[in-house]
Amino acid sequence: MKKHNFSAGPCILPRIAIENAAKAILDFNGMGLSLIEISHRTKDFEDVLDEATALLTELLDIPATHKVLWLGGGASTQFYFVPFNFMNKKAGYVNTGVWAKKALKEAKLFGDAVEVACSEDKNNTYIPKGFNIPLDLDYLHITTNNTIFGTQFKEDIDCPVPLIADMSSDILSRKVDVSKYALIYGGAQKNMGPAGVTFVIVNESMLGKVDRKLPSMINYKTHIDGGSMFNTPPVFPIFVVKETLKWLKSIGGVEAMAAINKQKADLLYGEIERNEMFSCPVEVQDRSVMNVPFVYSDKYKDMEPTAFLNFAKDNGMIGLKGHRLVGGFRASIYNALPLESVQALVDCMKEFEQKCK
Amino acid sequence: MKKHNFSAGPCILPRIAIENAAKAILDFNGMGLSLIEISHRTKDFEDVLDEATALLTELLDIPATHKVLWLGGGASTQFYFVPFNFMNKKAGYVNTGVWAKKALKEAKLFGDAVEVACSEDKNNTYIPKGFNIPLDLDYLHITTNNTIFGTQFKEDIDCPVPLIADMSSDILSRKVDVSKYALIYGGAQKNMGPAGVTFVIVNESMLGKVDRKLPSMINYKTHIDGGSMFNTPPVFPIFVVKETLKWLKSIGGVEAMAAINKQKADLLYGEIERNEMFSCPVEVQDRSVMNVPFVYSDKYKDMEPTAFLNFAKDNGMIGLKGHRLVGGFRASIYNALPLESVQALVDCMKEFEQKCK
Repeated sequence: MKKHNFSAGPCILPRIAIENAAKAILDFNGMGLSLIEISHRTKDFEDVLDEATALLTELLDIPATHKVLWLGGGASTQFYFVPFNFMNKKAGYVNTGVWAKKALKEAKLFGDAVEVACSEDKNNTYIPKGFNIPLDLDYLHITTNNTIFGTQFKEDIDCPVPLIADMSSDILSRKVDVSKYALIYGGAQKNMGPAGVTFVIVNESMLGKVDRKLPSMINYKTHIDGGSMFNTPPVFPIFVVKETLKWLKSIGGVEAMAAINKQKADLLYGEIERNEMFSCPVEVQDRSVMNVPFVYSDKYKDMEPTAFLNFAKDNGMIGLKGHRLVGGFRASIYNALPLESVQALVDCMKEFEQKCK
Repeated sequence: MKKHNFSAGPCILPRIAIENAAKAILDFNGMGLSLIEISHRTKDFEDVLDEATALLTELLDIPATHKVLWLGGGASTQFYFVPFNFMNKKAGYVNTGVWAKKALKEAKLFGDAVEVACSEDKNNTYIPKGFNIPLDLDYLHITTNNTIFGTQFKEDIDCPVPLIADMSSDILSRKVDVSKYALIYGGAQKNMGPAGVTFVIVNESMLGKVDRKLPSMINYKTHIDGGSMFNTPPVFPIFVVKETLKWLKSIGGVEAMAAINKQKADLLYGEIERNEMFSCPVEVQDRSVMNVPFVYSDKYKDMEPTAFLNFAKDNGMIGLKGHRLVGGFRASIYNALPLESVQALVDCMKEFEQKCK
């Protein structure tokens, strides 16, 4: 039976990227060696890294002011890299839920990290808007998409201080005006590739403005100067990123992807609205096109979540269990998830409604 | 033509690990999904991580006092993790060359990091011995094997202060008395697996003794408590580590491996001694069983290194170019490199000698 993979991350990747990864593991570039047993200093791997950078630059239209870095350690590592490199006295954080809050917690070790806006009053079911951004902030940090609560900043906000964004779970899902950001970062393991590599897009001119001494590995400048090769980079994850970006370009790039993502999201949110068994807790205008949390509607609220989960599982759907902070269900519909999988889920929801009526 | 892979790292891995990695990329555990598109929270992946930990624990006979961690970021990240977690006032470093020196440089940001011994007077061609270890050190840091200069600590030293070792390039090459170390760390990409994951073996009771506040991700305690799952771990590299450790166990474990490593090293160093064209700059008793640097002997010192490198390349040997700090040649003969590859190199050296005479 065909599997429909709604995992929140690590998650579905383009099949072609997976097949090319398996081939490169067995024999890379016809070298008679595996991708994972060659030096990262060989031209063959340097070409992989350069191509990944070139593709990301092209797909996001990254201006020359900004450098692309490929690092290890995950987005959680960036929670301290950011204040290390950018905070002298005061930084602002928009608290839209779990991950934003974790970033804020780490920043508090470095100075006066303040919450400039927060959506906890309504269990993070919306994106704060029109909040005041103090002009004395060294930077403002936002998490553009909340994987758990299913909220998303749909536009690049205007910000009078350097803007820093964790885009782990919606990078490449829509066009972004990179020039508006001092730094964008994220774990690759949603729209960009497998777990094990972190992307950073940084405006180089905004670095070097803090007084503290930085360990070499924490200093973004080290990695810019070293071309992401100051130390051994995560070779295999970077290869799969390159393959994933190639696939994205082949289907028309970010604009084409955004159109498909809207189609997928409209289809699924439409069914949630129509289907009397389900509802979505998130305010309509802030609903994520990447992560769609939904719960049983009031009428069915005493039904066990496993009832629908097992029904869905029998139909080949996996990864639909909701996060414990929201309950119910969550369908992550990242770039690589085909429209047909969303259609299959919608069909499954309709059948389940018929069955329960 | 069969390739003989003498790369310094990332480097040769057991063929069975590579084949199983390729299979898992296409279909993991018969799930109908790729290893790289499943959640790290699935039981299937948790089993991989647990098995990697269990195998390393068994292979190195790690006592219950010590915890095994799998982290991202590379050994260079540990250069600042170590002082963050262990240095209050003063730490000692044994400077045996490039990597030891880099570790020392980072530690200087955290307090009084002193060089307790150094081999720079003879271009790092030996391991300092009998040096004084001040009793007021928070820890002593050593790099057990120098990948570039080809020197190696052959025994676990007695140390009156907590001992911390970077074992990136000789972990699992010989038996180690783990109980003698407060912490052992290293990048996996030599004897343990591919680039992208870092192992840490830490005596938990020695943590929590510094005054500074630690970012969560830098605190070893975070990763102990989270079972290396505080954030998304590098899934694929950990899988390959597990496969590599399984292979090592299957051939008899570390003791059997150490015997084979000795056989390989004896064969190669023996030929370097015998062959009038080559010599090894490293003092005999400190010669690494992992990385074997050699140069042309005085008689042939005006010959271009490419002469032998090209001859070797024509015979299927790759990765033999010496590091620029040593010049000449370097054969890395890590665990996964078979004896037959060393024999092929030795044959090649003999033929080259015949040809040039």
